[in-house]
Amino acid sequence: MPENSTATQNGQLVIGDEEIFEAHLGGKIAVDLNRPLDTQRALSIAYTPGVAQVSRAIAADQTLAARYTWAHRLVAVVSDGTAVLGLGDLGPAASLPVMEGKAALFKTFAGLDAIPIVLNTKDPDEIVETLVRLRPSFGAVNLEDISAPRCFEIERRAIEALDCPVMHDDQHGTAIVVLAALKGAAQVLGREIASLRVVVSGAGAAGVACADILLSVGISGVTVLDSRGILHTGRTDMNSVKADLARRSNPEGRTGGLAEALVGADVFLGASGGVVPENLIATMAPGGVVFALSNPDPEVHPDLAAKYAAIVATGRSDFPNQINNVLAFPGIFRGALDAGARRITTAMKLAAAEAIYSVVADDLAPDRIVPSPLDPRVEPAVAAAVAAASGSAS
Amino acid sequence: MPENSTATQNGQLVIGDEEIFEAHLGGKIAVDLNRPLDTQRALSIAYTPGVAQVSRAIAADQTLAARYTWAHRLVAVVSDGTAVLGLGDLGPAASLPVMEGKAALFKTFAGLDAIPIVLNTKDPDEIVETLVRLRPSFGAVNLEDISAPRCFEIERRAIEALDCPVMHDDQHGTAIVVLAALKGAAQVLGREIASLRVVVSGAGAAGVACADILLSVGISGVTVLDSRGILHTGRTDMNSVKADLARRSNPEGRTGGLAEALVGADVFLGASGGVVPENLIATMAPGGVVFALSNPDPEVHPDLAAKYAAIVATGRSDFPNQINNVLAFPGIFRGALDAGARRITTAMKLAAAEAIYSVVADDLAPDRIVPSPLDPRVEPAVAAAVAAASGSAS
Repeated sequence: MPENSTATQNGQLVIGDEEIFEAHLGGKIAVDLNRPLDTQRALSIAYTPGVAQVSRAIAADQTLAARYTWAHRLVAVVSDGTAVLGLGDLGPAASLPVMEGKAALFKTFAGLDAIPIVLNTKDPDEIVETLVRLRPSFGAVNLEDISAPRCFEIERRAIEALDCPVMHDDQHGTAIVVLAALKGAAQVLGREIASLRVVVSGAGAAGVACADILLSVGISGVTVLDSRGILHTGRTDMNSVKADLARRSNPEGRTGGLAEALVGADVFLGASGGVVPENLIATMAPGGVVFALSNPDPEVHPDLAAKYAAIVATGRSDFPNQINNVLAFPGIFRGALDAGARRITTAMKLAAAEAIYSVVADDLAPDRIVPSPLDPRVEPAVAAAVAAASGSAS
Repeated sequence: MPENSTATQNGQLVIGDEEIFEAHLGGKIAVDLNRPLDTQRALSIAYTPGVAQVSRAIAADQTLAARYTWAHRLVAVVSDGTAVLGLGDLGPAASLPVMEGKAALFKTFAGLDAIPIVLNTKDPDEIVETLVRLRPSFGAVNLEDISAPRCFEIERRAIEALDCPVMHDDQHGTAIVVLAALKGAAQVLGREIASLRVVVSGAGAAGVACADILLSVGISGVTVLDSRGILHTGRTDMNSVKADLARRSNPEGRTGGLAEALVGADVFLGASGGVVPENLIATMAPGGVVFALSNPDPEVHPDLAAKYAAIVATGRSDFPNQINNVLAFPGIFRGALDAGARRITTAMKLAAAEAIYSVVADDLAPDRIVPSPLDPRVEPAVAAAVAAASGSAS
């Protein structure tokens, strides 16, 4: 097969390495000028002496920086490279292509400028401290590809320390799109979302955030597992985030592994990178939902899952129902910045999920529970909903 | 006079505030994509799953980051806002328009991407530490508008700590263009540059760097003054940078103020922001040189200086012989990055000055001792010369 082939292999789109690397030559983003600097007059306006007027004005009234610089609408895409995609701790330099890709997505989908900031430190204190020092350089922070459980502390402390929107997308972007997709699935199945019994496999960034958002919309039957089994308060091997989640998701003290958890479950949500055998999926309640989100290899192949579940979604672009964060984060940051919000609150996240769902609510089907990532209606809907929900976040 | 008037006032171009502020709306720079992200296929290449191949490759061989990301050729324009233009400590937010302007100049004149990094700290330890943490995010550092004497320590320590080109442009950009202009002036006057008696008024960032570069090309007669008079080793009120410069520039122990220094001098170089009375300029040797670089108000008005000096230069665009850093820094960083240099050495700075001078060497006149800032021949000549001189800097 030629390297640039567009053929599919086992149902997956195959793109040759040559084409991928060529598309990355010199990086994926660049700085451009909003107005040309090709005359002496333009120079005198954009640089000395003209620019002095603008600096003086901002010194006298700091709020004018939002009007006369790019920083107010600039998203810093920040990573330490400790959890690059599903590949693990590859370090900051290797995370750069992902952060550039994210910046390109911010521009394409939300018209927001974004720059990669990759850090040569893994220390949560130093990461938060660095963001505080950089604060006047940007208007919002998208944390990305930071390993759990460090990502929980870093996000919490960055939110406390910075007076601007901060969100770890691997947590909340995923959770928001999962909630939107589950709303769509429940509607297709004619079920009340709160009545669903959900099993979340994985208690890292995505798993914890998904469980949290599902609990927040009233789903009481959420069972969360890490590699050692169901989170329950009797366990002594959990970090504080898991322990807290065990208290909230499992007051009954259910124990066991995936086999025990899946029996009779309505929804399997894979956010683990692991593998789920077909015979366990077969024990779920009939007519259920499988979200196998690990990328590029889903926890269970969608064709197998479809033998037992009525609705199947993955993170992959070559199957129906792609759960892709790009449905959420561009509109979330755009809406938060449009509204001048200082925080991205739970209300704003829930509004984003509802907006994504609403785009396809009149046109749902088992293979169309979420919009396509390229659907141009999504970002404006999310941005408007998030801005409207930000009332108490400024 | 209407606000948008292009009329001149006392010989200076007048640009109305309205036009200046309108040209700054939303900032002066933006992030753009090198290739569009408008198809599912493009998304799969630039983001998951395709980008994983590039991250894996860089993790295995860190040098590939130079090829497949923007960072290698990205200049961080870094300031703490403590010396914004000639306006003083306006803080990081107010410095942003200047840093955006600088980024726009890097793009326009050298095709280099550059981003403003403005810091919410004035502590040299914290500034250097922050740059070390950010190191994988960029390929070079242009320090800007950092107050003296902190700028000397911060630059020295950043050069030691980072394996990439670092230059404080207020020091060396100015010094390089001053040297180029003085070469041109000496040629016009038929003088050997080493024979000139030079008075440098001001021992801040620009004054110290100018004195250093003039000493380095063999001008022994350099007298430097701060606001308290000539730097000499008998003084006890000087910081360590001034004390060191006093030892090197004034072994004879000359004392006194500007009046004593200027008598019989060939060159007055104003880098102080102060004012020099006409009667002191009148005591210089006849047929000399006045560089009155303070902006927007030169130390002596060029029309007054021209009564006594054969050659007059300023920092202003509305008089002949504009000493503008944009002649130097785009080509210096471009040349250093093209060559993969880890340092910007004295040899590279001297090569840059020679290249600027060479562009007009065949076409010199008293009112044309340096090229115009818009002369398209300058940046390629400087970049080539700097790259060629970087042999020992990698």
